[in-house]
Order: sequence, then structure tokens, then C-alpha cells
Amino acid sequence: MAEPLRIALAGLGTVGAGVIRLLAANAALVRSRAGREIRIVAVSARDRVRDRGVDLSAFDWCDDMAAMASRDDVDAVVEMVGGADGPALTLAKTAIRQGKALVTANKAMIAHHGLELARAAEERGVPLKFEAAVAGGIPVIKGLREGAAANAIARVQGILNGTCNFILSTMEDTGRDFADVLAEAQALGFAEADPSFDIDGIDAGHKLAILAAIAFGARLDFAHVSCEGIGAVRAADIARARDLGFVIRLVGEADVDAGPPGAAPARLLQRVRPCLVPQAHPLAHVDGPTNAVVAEGNFSGRLLFQGAGAGDGPTASAVVADLIDIARSTMDGREAGPAFSVPVGELLAMEPAEPGDRTGRSYIRFTVADRPGVLAEITAAMRDAEVSIESLIQQGEPDAKGDVLVAMVTHEGPERCVAEALRLLDGSPSLTAPPLVMPILEA
Amino acid sequence: MAEPLRIALAGLGTVGAGVIRLLAANAALVRSRAGREIRIVAVSARDRVRDRGVDLSAFDWCDDMAAMASRDDVDAVVEMVGGADGPALTLAKTAIRQGKALVTANKAMIAHHGLELARAAEERGVPLKFEAAVAGGIPVIKGLREGAAANAIARVQGILNGTCNFILSTMEDTGRDFADVLAEAQALGFAEADPSFDIDGIDAGHKLAILAAIAFGARLDFAHVSCEGIGAVRAADIARARDLGFVIRLVGEADVDAGPPGAAPARLLQRVRPCLVPQAHPLAHVDGPTNAVVAEGNFSGRLLFQGAGAGDGPTASAVVADLIDIARSTMDGREAGPAFSVPVGELLAMEPAEPGDRTGRSYIRFTVADRPGVLAEITAAMRDAEVSIESLIQQGEPDAKGDVLVAMVTHEGPERCVAEALRLLDGSPSLTAPPLVMPILEA
Repeated sequence: MAEPLRIALAGLGTVGAGVIRLLAANAALVRSRAGREIRIVAVSARDRVRDRGVDLSAFDWCDDMAAMASRDDVDAVVEMVGGADGPALTLAKTAIRQGKALVTANKAMIAHHGLELARAAEERGVPLKFEAAVAGGIPVIKGLREGAAANAIARVQGILNGTCNFILSTMEDTGRDFADVLAEAQALGFAEADPSFDIDGIDAGHKLAILAAIAFGARLDFAHVSCEGIGAVRAADIARARDLGFVIRLVGEADVDAGPPGAAPARLLQRVRPCLVPQAHPLAHVDGPTNAVVAEGNFSGRLLFQGAGAGDGPTASAVVADLIDIARSTMDGREAGPAFSVPVGELLAMEPAEPGDRTGRSYIRFTVADRPGVLAEITAAMRDAEVSIESLIQQGEPDAKGDVLVAMVTHEGPERCVAEALRLLDGSPSLTAPPLVMPILEA
Repeated sequence: MAEPLRIALAGLGTVGAGVIRLLAANAALVRSRAGREIRIVAVSARDRVRDRGVDLSAFDWCDDMAAMASRDDVDAVVEMVGGADGPALTLAKTAIRQGKALVTANKAMIAHHGLELARAAEERGVPLKFEAAVAGGIPVIKGLREGAAANAIARVQGILNGTCNFILSTMEDTGRDFADVLAEAQALGFAEADPSFDIDGIDAGHKLAILAAIAFGARLDFAHVSCEGIGAVRAADIARARDLGFVIRLVGEADVDAGPPGAAPARLLQRVRPCLVPQAHPLAHVDGPTNAVVAEGNFSGRLLFQGAGAGDGPTASAVVADLIDIARSTMDGREAGPAFSVPVGELLAMEPAEPGDRTGRSYIRFTVADRPGVLAEITAAMRDAEVSIESLIQQGEPDAKGDVLVAMVTHEGPERCVAEALRLLDGSPSLTAPPLVMPILEA
């Protein structure tokens, strides 16, 4: 059997400890599938004395991560430090520069610096892999990069944040409101003390940008991902949606259009938003902290990948799958193929698409004062903006603050018309809170 | 850019034509992802003059498939001839012997001869790949072999036959009976004129045996797959199941147990059966001709892969994904790793497990004569076999033949007790047709 693949682990939080546990528990099968042993030789973390529930005595402890990444007896570095910049990025760059394979679970770092790191890895001829950065234990990077490689992908959609999905599906099951369920999620450890990164859609946006780059062969472009979170979704919206046959999910969606006539390259639209998902759509049955990704290939048709989106076990599963790939593919000093499925120089530079050009149905919910004429004002704005209303529900009773919810579903039409209607209503004293617009996904 | 990967295609049915169309339609992206051109140089099929809707003029036509597989200007052979033996197997063996990579969509051939072919491919150092043989366009072979490679898999479950799933979900949607829906499926082209291969569960069994070998690192063992089809499922069973909160699906399931105390190797159980699937199980939402596979890894947790299980586009997507892998991995004369994730010599030889040892809940439906004492006879047999009944439904009205259906759900218990109860009732004049037993999957 070939020489071991020698690993340095940086960052020993729950995921780092999970990787150590996995390599111990599944040692024989990992060796068999990798074609050689995957051996941890060195570890590093901020706090040496903390008890992580795993035995570190067999590994060299390094206080200096960058120095660890430069060791001659290390073939691959696993980065689980976290953060888009700082020590994680320094470590990643050092590892690649030193000719080490790099495996990371760090979506923020890849979303912000993935192209730069991929170019450095190509130049140095080392693998860069990040299966664990998107959708935890689901092998969706591999699924798109290799499994669906023969297809032009028209669209990717995903439930990419387990915290938001836990909150929304718990609201759905219990009828409770957002703040209440968020507090429970925090108590259960499903949400961070500062949950904004998750509930504002930023984390899902990082993952979407990575998926889009691979799916479309486009230059990674997190700066143009529009992220809208779930904080404005009310229990009443979920109840209305259910009456109409939908569930509400935070969906990251990316697709390409041909652009205006005469424009050469395709344009890329990347958005994270709460959406109404019909029961016949595969994402409608993704509950709790589960993640899922749907990709539509021009030959494969619609593919669904689903599983645990976070947690030490699933994330370790993805990290070690990357290590096994590296162990196999670099056995004779080879490299494992481009990180984003094609070399960075071949990735398309796509302009961001204009969202207003898109057509679809929307759910719009207004929070209005309980007085005559409000409905006439809203429907007049819709008429003037050429938004056609399919159905309208006004809640019977005002809530504690005296507000009434008015929810409507539009016929299919351009999104810019909906935006124009809201602009016409902007500043109206009839509206007591900003309206919430959610697109309705097609089955 | 590297030299083209030169392909010979054998078999030009709908899938073969699909591969030709895909390589033309997606030429630029395939070249980009493969790192080099994938170029068809030669084709072969039984009938030269048939119009396949694709232009063959750029390819050399070969009347002799085996000779085509021996050409010096061919690097990889794509086998889409079909059939477990005969010309397909001769072609496959010839291609490997001649040092060509082999890609096949032929589940019957892999289920029966996969180990022999994999061993030959290892000895010759050539890739053998068969993503298209299981679940059409879904990259589930890759998902298990590579994506879930870090895990000990406890169980795989799949909806692996689109014809059966189309029939069952149409019966569910329309309330129509099996024979009627089968006739429609045949008219629509979803079922063959001789449908037995599909509806008896053999086709699903082939795919299950392949999945099990990869998931468990076990020697492929189609001989011990027990296959039960959907021909005995009645509209009334589907209605009963729905009342109880289940859908009926033909599920292929494989798992391993530790065997009796002292027995060293794990034992493998492989079964294809109609099952009652609870709404909370991911397979409950797989409708129409869709396929899906669930794998439970010891670190990843439950993974779901879902998509189109058949058709020229999805199958071509899988075939070309294999070709892209080969184009990348063999760029410098390398090989792409073992076909069944570990070398054939390292695959475990697992004994078949004893199904009676398994515990679970069952749905049992009796077709009985409408006369006094029948229910007492059945329930006495259950008592004597120590089968505990959770619920029992007797249909109000006898059917046209004067038969009455009695359906029951058992409490969790060993399957051997259910088998014993049926043995006690065997030959009873009260039963007018053999009972139908379907396991109830856990959510």
C-alpha cells in the first residue's frame, strides 16, 4: 500500500473533533477506500488545554498554525478555524504556497476568497476542496462538479441554512411566532447567540455563491448575491401559505439568463429569500435542520440532494470524503482537478442579471391600519403598476396593535411591476409596517 | 489542451442516441470540465439503416462490435447494447482486455458479472464505470462511492424502478387497479410489452445489488437478492395504507447485521418489496417515474439522492459524467480507482442474513370468503404465532367475486412470527387468495 496521506488539522471545535473521531472510528474503511492510510500528524487550535472529548496525545501540537502548514511531514491541511479572513485565510494561503492540499469547511472564506485560493492552488498544482462548506454532509459539490458535469445547469435552488429551516418548520408545526421559536432554537443550540448571520440569509448566500460558481462555470460572485432573511415572516403568513397549499422556506436560488438582445455573456441572478414552495416541489418536504439542493440540468432533468446540513458528524463526513479523494488522486503526485470544476481562467465572468425582468407569481402581505379605504388604496396601486391579483385574503380580526394583515397572491407577471406597486404605496400612512413580498416557486 | 478521449459507442437505441446528442449540444462545457475533448470516433449497432434522429456521418460505422473495441484509435468503449450476457458481455470483456476504459448503462450485466469485470479492469489497469446502470441520471454511484466514502453505511433504501413507481403513484392518484394502470403505462411507453422484468422487481433487484456492493464494500451478490413485485397490490391496499398515513412504494432495501454471536463477518440482507412508507420518510414523496436512494451513514446521517430514473437524457447525463471522470483521471495514463470503491480482493464476502431475525411492523392483507368464523381463524393464527395486532380493518362490502379484504397492521415483532402465522393459515379454505405482506418502513 502507498505511503500515508499526512494531515495537519487546524481548528479543534466540534467539527475538528468530529474529523478526529471519524478517522478513528472508520479507520479501516477509510484506508480501504482511500487506497492508503489517512494519518493526522499535527493539530493546532487557539486553546491547548480545553477538553474536546478526543485524545490528542498521538498528534504533534503546534501553537503556530502557519508553521504547521509548512511542515515537511504534512501533505494536506484541513482548515476548520472559521472566519472569512484572519488566521483561516493566512493558513489557507500558506498551505497552498507550501504545496499542501487544502481542505476547508469554511464557506465564508471560500465565498469571499475562493477564486484567489483556487488560482493559487492551480498554479501550485495542489488540490483545494471544500465539500463541507456547502450543505454539511450532503455531497452536493461533488454532485454538481462531477455527477452533473455533463449538463448545462439552468438553475440551482437550495435550502442551505439549517437554523432558518428549523425555525420556519417549527413555526409551521406549532403556529408560534418567529421571536419565540428563535429563542427556543438558541436554547437548543440550533441558533447562535447572535443569529443575524443565519437568519438574515448571509450564510445561505455564501453557500449559494459557491454552488452557482460550480453549477454555471461562472466566476464566484458573492458581492452580487441579494440576501433577505426570515425575520419578517409571521405565523400568519405561514398559516395563509398553508391554506393556499404552500410551505414557506428560505431558498437560495441562482439561475442564468441570456441577457438583453445582443449581449454576449449570460447573466447570473443569485438570491436568498423566503419563498412559498408548493407541495409538489421537492423542497417542500425538507423539514427541521435538513438541507437540500435542487439542480436542473439540460439532460439530467431535476436532481435533488438532501441530508443533514450541519453538525460535527455530517461535516466530518464531507471533510474526510475530500481527504479520500485527495489520497486517491494525488497518489503519484497528481492533482485532483479544478476546485470550481473548470480552471479559474475558464470560468465565465457573468454580469448580474436584472431581477425586475423575471416573471413569476408573488405573495404580498401588507400590515395595515384597520380603517376604511385601505384596501382600495392597495388595489389601486396594484392596478396602476399592472399587477394582476389572483386572490386576496384579509384577516378578520385586528391584532393586538390594531393592525390587520392583508395577503394577496398575484398572477404571473414581471417582478418590476410588483416593485413599482410597492413604490407607489411607499410612505402611505395606511401601511403600518413594510410589506413582505415572497416569490412563489413553480412546482 | 490534452489529446481527445476517443470513444466507441456500441448500441444506438434511445440512450446511445442521447449520448451523441449530449456530446454535440454540450460540447464546449464537456470539453472544459473534462480538460479535453470527448470525441466519438466509431459506432456500432445491430441495424445500420434505422433512423435514430442523430447524424452518424462523422463516425466510423463498425459492423463488428468486438473489432471496434480493439481499435487502436479508441480509448474508451461505451456499452449500451443491453442484456446480462451475449454481445454486451463479449464486448465488455474484449474492451477491457484490449486496455480500453469501459462505461456501461447495463445493470443486468453489472449485477451478474460486475465482480468479474471489475477484477479484469483492475488487472488491466483500466477504468470500469456504470453510473447510468443505477437510478438513471442521479449520480448515486458517485454519491456512495466517493461522496459518502468516509462512512460505514448501515442501510440503503431506494425507489429504483420508474415503471413500478409510476404505476403505484398513478393507482394512488386515481384509485384505479393495477391491471388497468399497467395497460395505460404500456400505452404511454412507461412499461414494456413484457413488463415482468420491471413489475416483478428484478430490475430493481439488479440495481440494489450494485448499490449494496458499493455501500457496504461487499462482494456483489445478486443471487441473494429476494425480489417481490407489485402485481399483488390492489387499489384497496393503497386506500387502506393512505387511511393509516402511508403510501405504498416498491422499495429495494439492503442492510447488514452482525450475524449470530461469534460469527465473524457481517451478514447482508437484500430485498425488493412493496412497502408502506410513512409520510415523514423521504421516499414517501417520490412520485411518478422518479427514482430516489436513501443511504444512512454513521457520520453523515441520512442522505437522499433523487431524480429521473430513466430516459435518454438522464441516462446520457450519467454516461457522459463517467466519461468526463475518465477523461480527467486517465489524462496521464492513470486509472480512476476501483469500480466498487475498493479493490475486488478487499470486498467482504458477506453471508446472506436471515430475514426472520428482523423485527418491524407489517401490513398483512387477507382475501377471505365472506362467512362466519374467518376472522376468528385468522386472529387465532396470529395469536398462536405470537403476532401482536395493532389495528385491523375489515372491508364492509364483499367484492364482485364475493371476497372480503381483511387488512391488519402488526405491532413491532420478528418477521419469522408473521411467516409462521401465514404458514398456520396456509391451505385454509377461508383464504381465497394468498395473503399480501408488506413491511412498514420506519420514518
